[in-house]
Amino acid sequence: MRRLDYSWKDVMPKSERLLYSKTFSQTNDLGIKPALLVIDCTYAFTGTRKTTIEKAIEEVPTACGEMAWEAIPYIQQLLFVIREKQLPIIYTKNDVESQLMVGKATKSIRQVDLDPYYQLIPDEIRPSDGEWVLQKPKASAFFSTSLVSYLYQKQIDSLIICGATTSGCVRATATDACSYGISTFVVEEACFDRSYFAHCANLFDINAKYASVISFNTLNEQLLQMDQ
Amino acid sequence: MRRLDYSWKDVMPKSERLLYSKTFSQTNDLGIKPALLVIDCTYAFTGTRKTTIEKAIEEVPTACGEMAWEAIPYIQQLLFVIREKQLPIIYTKNDVESQLMVGKATKSIRQVDLDPYYQLIPDEIRPSDGEWVLQKPKASAFFSTSLVSYLYQKQIDSLIICGATTSGCVRATATDACSYGISTFVVEEACFDRSYFAHCANLFDINAKYASVISFNTLNEQLLQMDQ
Amino acid sequence: MRRLDYSWKDVMPKSERLLYSKTFSQTNDLGIKPALLVIDCTYAFTGTRKTTIEKAIEEVPTACGEMAWEAIPYIQQLLFVIREKQLPIIYTKNDVESQLMVGKATKSIRQVDLDPYYQLIPDEIRPSDGEWVLQKPKASAFFSTSLVSYLYQKQIDSLIICGATTSGCVRATATDACSYGISTFVVEEACFDRSYFAHCANLFDINAKYASVISFNTLNEQLLQMDQ
Amino acid sequence: MRRLDYSWKDVMPKSERLLYSKTFSQTNDLGIKPALLVIDCTYAFTGTRKTTIEKAIEEVPTACGEMAWEAIPYIQQLLFVIREKQLPIIYTKNDVESQLMVGKATKSIRQVDLDPYYQLIPDEIRPSDGEWVLQKPKASAFFSTSLVSYLYQKQIDSLIICGATTSGCVRATATDACSYGISTFVVEEACFDRSYFAHCANLFDINAKYASVISFNTLNEQLLQMDQ
Repeated sequence: MRRLDYSWKDVMPKSERLLYSKTFSQTNDLGIKPALLVIDCTYAFTGTRKTTIEKAIEEVPTACGEMAWEAIPYIQQLLFVIREKQLPIIYTKNDVESQLMVGKATKSIRQVDLDPYYQLIPDEIRPSDGEWVLQKPKASAFFSTSLVSYLYQKQIDSLIICGATTSGCVRATATDACSYGISTFVVEEACFDRSYFAHCANLFDINAKYASVISFNTLNEQLLQMDQ
Repeated sequence: MRRLDYSWKDVMPKSERLLYSKTFSQTNDLGIKPALLVIDCTYAFTGTRKTTIEKAIEEVPTACGEMAWEAIPYIQQLLFVIREKQLPIIYTKNDVESQLMVGKATKSIRQVDLDPYYQLIPDEIRPSDGEWVLQKPKASAFFSTSLVSYLYQKQIDSLIICGATTSGCVRATATDACSYGISTFVVEEACFDRSYFAHCANLFDINAKYASVISFNTLNEQLLQMDQ
Repeated sequence: MRRLDYSWKDVMPKSERLLYSKTFSQTNDLGIKPALLVIDCTYAFTGTRKTTIEKAIEEVPTACGEMAWEAIPYIQQLLFVIREKQLPIIYTKNDVESQLMVGKATKSIRQVDLDPYYQLIPDEIRPSDGEWVLQKPKASAFFSTSLVSYLYQKQIDSLIICGATTSGCVRATATDACSYGISTFVVEEACFDRSYFAHCANLFDINAKYASVISFNTLNEQLLQMDQ
Repeated sequence: MRRLDYSWKDVMPKSERLLYSKTFSQTNDLGIKPALLVIDCTYAFTGTRKTTIEKAIEEVPTACGEMAWEAIPYIQQLLFVIREKQLPIIYTKNDVESQLMVGKATKSIRQVDLDPYYQLIPDEIRPSDGEWVLQKPKASAFFSTSLVSYLYQKQIDSLIICGATTSGCVRATATDACSYGISTFVVEEACFDRSYFAHCANLFDINAKYASVISFNTLNEQLLQMDQ
């Protein structure tokens, strides 16, 4: 079970956290038209059911175990809130066809020609009609894809990120979003990783440098305030 | 003083390290034409002299303190070895002019119109004639720059990265290098950060997912073997 | 002296123009926040004074002769109108430093280490304070630059292009703008090339496929209507 | 029936051709590992059979008529020669799924949700096993795709382009290839367009600025010489 509210406090020495706070401190702005990005929430990363990480990676080596299934209800709520507001939602999954030609997203030992079943998104958080399931070949959802064109055309002025893994595609995508100058939020409870340590340490970096790490409740309040 | 030889052992729980080793394990190959990338080794990140991080950031808020000056002799040796082999060297520094138009590389509180003095590279590791000092606007040296064109044109088949900060531009650049499919090495002692914790945690992620983290001595041996 | 109002009628057979009109017909929309892009209007492309193309290229081989100096008054008017409306203006010029490392924009025989004088923009159309002079290494102003980030951050919803050369950087930039999904206008009298034939033939292609070629007067009327 | 050997002589005034030759003159080099790029040779662009352009566009508005079917035997020969030499071949076709989200490649009136039949490649020139059919959303095969990663990873040092349309995707791709610094060849008889005028005028520009336009026979001789 993971604790919430800036989980990096669990792993990072206080002195170094204080030091960083002198260099990095800006917060982001939700703007008037956010979009939600749901990264790599396929069975390949969630595993096919809630079980320990040890058992999960026996079935599929990239699975994240219980942490994934703790995040899914938060992703479900995020999807509900964003759909209520009729804001754009983009899912990503691996572009297996391109990966056969240009290599996988990371050095993982996963086979790219994995059973297509593992490319499915769990029912609890499945895409609705008209929501884009963007196939991406590499870690960042922006790399060699049309994502920036889409966000620009839709005049999206902030990006809300959830999914997996915190230390992999979530962070790489948040980094690129910041590079394009997009105000970005990463929802703490709605992200997961196969290491809780890596999850925490990466949320710290993301929050310091590229995006605002935010709890689901705080984000939800800010989204409600957008109406008024 | 930082310990070496896979410094992430200092901060990351053993159980989680073992878990990751089941998913990620490939090593990289130095190929036949590596290039060296020296990231953001300007006074803005090294500070102007060896002193504690607390004092260093009083002078310039992005400085990394002693850790920078412990890395500089290793960078110096790397430069010597790579120049001996007449392989390409690329330095990066902030593209201040572009940053005024499209924002800084990160959420840091640094002013982009900083005294130009802080854009200088310390004498110990200064560029030689013909070495490219690439001005980059964002964290990754590849983002909105000609770096991939340069590496492709020179038929570079592996990239050796050193510099700062480990958790910022070094990691973002290693991530993009992996996305382009470039075999990448990050030299452990030749990188620095303003947090030792963040340095270690990021080297772990980089090594697991995007590049081979390597000690200067091991890399040096591999470079020597290239001759034969 | 060049004729105006869709100059491609001067060079392209009517039957082929009609044929194309069955496949391509959409017009673009000026939106609510256009930006003006002034491409490569440096002495390298205008030449240093109004003279025949034959004489102009004796001084600098990339010069465009009289056609440049016929376009300059239109560019001047465009700048005036856009500045009145306080809309963003971006100039481009060659990024000579990068070109030394990654090659010139085209196969032209121009030396990249040309006298810096030829990198200056004529007084009649010189940038005002705060207007970005973007250095670009290649034909398209988007290639390996921060231009798309800038336009996205400023929430620009259409792009007005003028400058040189019609068959080179103007067309390459209009093509990329279309690829990003930006509604784009190319101002007929405010573009120039060293071949009138190439100017006309390229305006035809640009108008058919990527942007709306528009006369200065028509654009000016549309800009005036934006106010109401 | 189109004439060959630098077809732009058919449409461009001699005086302007001479003028350009003073500015642009470099030729390209085939290197040691070329790749072949076959652009958009689907029924959408070839039409389903050899017939006049007028009839062809009644069936599918983007078809190119007889010109396509005159080019196909040359593309077939190119494929044969390149396969004999075991060099990489990449086909492109429209990425219809992405185009639904980010718009079509050009302003054409084509529906993106066209009958999938028109996305097929004619039997005469169909891909062999292991040859990549790259789905591209926009005119340039490089835009928002993994093409540059693939070419770099395969250490391709020159690119041979054929297909359609000369004034659209062929030119846009040749422009980007030049921007990346790739030595590029466009095979005159193996390209087609729905306007012969546009075909000729664009080959002129491509040859002047971005690539070497070459006849099939000349290229074939150069490829044969690579063996020795």
